[in-house]
Formats: sequence, C-alpha cells, structure tokens
Amino acid sequence: MRRMKRLLAITMGDPTGVGPEIIARAWSDRSLHAQVRMVVLGHPEIMRRAIRLVRGSARVVEVTSVEAADSSLEQLPCLQCSDDRVVAVPPRTLHPLGGQAAYEAVTMATGLAQAGRVDGIVTAPLNKAALAAAGHAYPGHTELLADLCGVDEVAMMLYLGPSELVRGPAGLGVAHATLHMALRDIFTSLTPERIVRTARLAHVVTHCLLDATPAPAAPRIGVCALNPHAGEQALFGDEEERIIRPAVTHAADAGMDVSGPFPADTLLARATAGEFDAVVAMYHDQGHIALKLLGMHRAVNITLGLPVIRTSVAHGTAFDLAGTGQARCDSMIEAIRVAAILIDRQSLLSWNP
Amino acid sequence: MRRMKRLLAITMGDPTGVGPEIIARAWSDRSLHAQVRMVVLGHPEIMRRAIRLVRGSARVVEVTSVEAADSSLEQLPCLQCSDDRVVAVPPRTLHPLGGQAAYEAVTMATGLAQAGRVDGIVTAPLNKAALAAAGHAYPGHTELLADLCGVDEVAMMLYLGPSELVRGPAGLGVAHATLHMALRDIFTSLTPERIVRTARLAHVVTHCLLDATPAPAAPRIGVCALNPHAGEQALFGDEEERIIRPAVTHAADAGMDVSGPFPADTLLARATAGEFDAVVAMYHDQGHIALKLLGMHRAVNITLGLPVIRTSVAHGTAFDLAGTGQARCDSMIEAIRVAAILIDRQSLLSWNP
Repeated sequence: MRRMKRLLAITMGDPTGVGPEIIARAWSDRSLHAQVRMVVLGHPEIMRRAIRLVRGSARVVEVTSVEAADSSLEQLPCLQCSDDRVVAVPPRTLHPLGGQAAYEAVTMATGLAQAGRVDGIVTAPLNKAALAAAGHAYPGHTELLADLCGVDEVAMMLYLGPSELVRGPAGLGVAHATLHMALRDIFTSLTPERIVRTARLAHVVTHCLLDATPAPAAPRIGVCALNPHAGEQALFGDEEERIIRPAVTHAADAGMDVSGPFPADTLLARATAGEFDAVVAMYHDQGHIALKLLGMHRAVNITLGLPVIRTSVAHGTAFDLAGTGQARCDSMIEAIRVAAILIDRQSLLSWNP
Repeated sequence: MRRMKRLLAITMGDPTGVGPEIIARAWSDRSLHAQVRMVVLGHPEIMRRAIRLVRGSARVVEVTSVEAADSSLEQLPCLQCSDDRVVAVPPRTLHPLGGQAAYEAVTMATGLAQAGRVDGIVTAPLNKAALAAAGHAYPGHTELLADLCGVDEVAMMLYLGPSELVRGPAGLGVAHATLHMALRDIFTSLTPERIVRTARLAHVVTHCLLDATPAPAAPRIGVCALNPHAGEQALFGDEEERIIRPAVTHAADAGMDVSGPFPADTLLARATAGEFDAVVAMYHDQGHIALKLLGMHRAVNITLGLPVIRTSVAHGTAFDLAGTGQARCDSMIEAIRVAAILIDRQSLLSWNP
C-alpha cells in the first residue's frame, strides 16, 4: 500500500456559527490538498448546505470511519457525530443543540487523535455560551481539549504568518504564560516554571514553523515584562527580577535563544519588525491586543502542550456573519497549513531539555 | 499691532539625545510655520550644531525673551536656558548636565506657559536616568510637568493621526486611566472617578481634534475592560461590573458618547478600524502595545489635565541614533500640529459637565 498523506480531523464547530462555511470555503484551496488529507467531523447535511452557500464544488460524502475518508478538492468526507435535530436549528442561533454538536465533534476528534487514527486536529469555532447551555462549562476551547486529554498545563499561541506588517521569516507566534483568568490572579499564577514551560513550547512549535521556511534557523524568543517599562529598575513592580528574569536565565541555560524581560510594548513592535520569531506574553491581553491589530482574520491559535497536534481559527462563531457566506476563511486555511507543518515535524515537537 | 500667530515653546530635551536634531529637521516643514510661531528653549550652540547635522537652512538666533522671538522657516529663535558646559557633553551620553539642561528647559517652558507668555509647550525627549543623575527623580516627563504645575491628577493620551492603519476621521487617541505604576497597583488605583475623569479629558481633546477635521462630530469613546474577555460575565474578575461599568454609565449620563467596557483586544482593533475616536485604557501597556505597533515613529503624547497645553513626541532620547542625523521627525511635526490645534480651540478644553 502506498504511503498515504497524513490525515487531519477538522471539527465543524458550532453549526449555527461560521464554522461550516469557512471549512467549505477553505476546501477549495487547492494547495491544502497537496499537503494533507482531511475529514470533517460534524453533520453531512450542514456541510452540504455550507458548500452550497459558498458556491463550492466539492461533493460531501458521508463516511462511517476516518480510515475510509477519501479527501480531495472534489470530495469532502464527513463523519457524522451529532444529532440530526441540529440541522433544523437556524444559523446565528445560540442553541444547546449547537453547543452539543460542537462538543461532540471536539470529543470525537480528540479520541481519534489520541488513538493515532488522525494525525492532528483543526477546530472551527464553538460558542462558549452554547457549550455551557449544553451542559459543558469551559472557559474556552483550549481548556476543553486539555480536559479531554487529561493534561493540566497547556499554553496558547496566537500565530500570524509573514506579511508586510509581520516581518519575521516564519511570521510571529505569541505564547501566553497565563490565559483565561482575572488579571488579579496573574500574580499568584505566574511562576518561573510556568514561563520556562511556555518558552519551551513556543520554542518547539516555532522551530517547526521555521523549519518549513527556505532558511531554517533557531527560534529567537523574546519574553515580555509584566510591568510597564519592564518595571523601570523595580520602581514599578518586582516580578521582572523575582519571576521573569530567573525563568529567562533557566531557558537560556537549557539551550534556547530566549531573552528578556523586555517592556511588552517595545518587544511586540520589535518582534513584528522581524527581530524575534516568537514572544512569550505574561497574560491574555498582552498578546491578543497585538495580534488582533496585526491581522486577526488570518491568525491561527496553536495549542501547546497537548499530547495531540491541534490548531484552530483564532476567531469566534461570528453569529453576525453566519449564513451570509461573507465570512473569510483565511484563518481556517492558515490553521490547516500550520497543522500540516507540525504533523510533518512531530519529532521536533518532543524536544524537552 | 497685528494679531500675532500663537506662540509655542519647544523644549530641546536632553541635548545628548535626538531632541535637537528632530527639532531642527521639523523646522523645515513649511506647513508648521503657517500654523504657529515657535521658540526653542535650550542652548543656541547645540541647535546650530543640530541644524548643520540635518543640513537645515534655518538661522539660529539667540533671544533673551520669548516676546522677542521672530519665528519663520528661515529663522529659529532660541532662548538659552542651560549651562554652557552642556555643549561639551558628546551625543549619546547619559550625563547629569544633559539631564539638568532638559530639566531647565521644561521648568522654563512651564513657567512661561503658566504666565501666559507662550500658548503651549511641545517637549522633545528627556532621559529619565540623566534627569535622576541631575537630582530630579521622576517616573516620567508627564509627572515632572504635573509637579511643576502643582496638579495631582493628569492623564496621558497617546495619539496617532489618520492613516491606512488608523481609520477614524481624526485618527485615534488612547488615554490611560493609570500609567507609571506596577500592574499590581492598578487594583487599588483604578476607581470609577479616575475612569470618568480620564474619559472627560479624552473627550475634550478628541473634540478639538475632530473639530479640526472637515466634518466635526462628537467624539466616540470606547472604554477598555481590565480583564480578558471583559471578565467573561465576572468569571475572570469583577472590576468590569464593580468599577468600569459604573464609570461608563456616569460619563454617558454627563453627555459624552462613552461605551464599554469592551474586551481590550477587540476594542483596540475596532477603534483602529474607525469605530471609535478615542479609547480609555486601564493601564500603560494596554494602550502602548497597540499604538507602538500602529506607528510609534509618528505618535504624539498629549498630557491631559494640566493647566497648560502640552504635547510631546512619544519616543525617547534614542541614544543609538543621536548625532547620526537619522532620527525621524514625524512625531515632532505631529506634536506641533496637535498643539496648534489645541491652542486654537482652548474654549473646548475647559468643558467640564
């Protein structure tokens, strides 16, 4: 038997959001099919509707196992994993059936990836309120995945490929040492260990991304300060000296090109100009403010620290656009492209000095 | 006597930084001279050197009072306010004489503005370490000015004029409810009163800036949340409901078009796209990360709440560039342009509902 291209599971997300239509639109990107095979986990009827909405030409074929998925520009294999009743829920609707369908797709994808039956997961957006309405309360998609995989510690990287505004050879990834928590709770959650771990996760993923460029090089990682002006010599806070600098020293000693802490505002501008390949942000908004300004419509969310490869679009269900066929699929295309890069370089991901 | 154009005092900043040369370069911008008269507070010999460095054509004329300043494209009046010894300090040098010269220019400018002898101040960058070495320890330029004016409460707005990346009719100003303090101290410093006051200051300045556009309109002000996702319905912190929302309600009741709190990452992206004219940030990095990415080389720092009009370049002394003649003067030109707009609309600045 010939060696098959790697297989990606794509979860449909909340069917009442833009998930199905951005998958349908991304499907017509010929270059993706040269990189990976794909199977959509969701509902075939909803995918058919989405293909019609975006005037796509792919034929949706229901499959009963991922092994049977025959994926091409012309054919979209879909494994049903949700209740038929969800087909009747209109677009743009926060509904428990939508939340449940999204949940089931993520659950199935995770199980398939853990069993080695798919090589990675790309997720379309789910709606947290709909997820909660279906009885699954999680602060985010990432936390749901961590729970399903039974891991405590994951980190989230927001990634943008190179562009006129993002000048690094592989673009820019921002990994977050803390994420979905009150700003007040950062002070108890931020530890040197957590920063080192986030730097290591950022290092291995960025190593893969750089390895896929014409001139592979070691990732240059900058670490954000927590306080303005990096604490201005401890005048505005001591977390830089007490927590962040020891972490940077530790990471550098382990062989990574990690430096900082630098004032976050100048570091993000320098990184954008191409001076760093990845940045470790101390908290959610530090990274998100920068990347949303630089091009959120094409940003990719990469979960670091799961036992499976997972990327995601970085936007939400966008109920205001769902069903109009106007939603852009740049982020979905990029998420698939990045997942394919990571799958092809799994050996680099396991580096742990 | 004919009505003279308004007079701006421009402080030279630290003479070993880029201050003198960016003033020299900005001086050749013909449009500025149509808007205001200017007098430089510093050292005439250093200004002559700077004019030579940038191959400028203006003649530096030493004056003994600002009233005697005859300002034009061809003539740069300079009022000496520092020790002659500073002329011998080489560029790019952190030196107490540089700090002292910067301090004396700011002190003189503030006195002149408070006495009504100049209509506003534009400041070139000083170096905080040099300032401290000269015996004047301040967390920033803004705090020094507040102290000289005897006011406790000022706010800092970073402002960018319209561009391809900043789509509002008057660009975007971000006013900071807290500034030079440890992130940890925000939780005790942030009060509804402080947010309302910052919103009001942002409102009056933005009103002036919009009034100078072809289609004046009321400023639309968005207020940032403190926590990620604006606290996600109090799941990640309660400051939104306890502190920020009451402030927004109060400001709206006072007649301002103020809304929020919105998640900071999406608000700044929306504002950049033109949906808001000004944003109230809760802390330093929230505003600075965004504006440094969007074009720090042309950003203007506007001090809100002083009894005198003051704008500034938003960059530092840039010792790495000083003396090379490479430093861009966009920020200085913009700071002068904005000061001229505010001077012409002083009546709007005193609005206090």
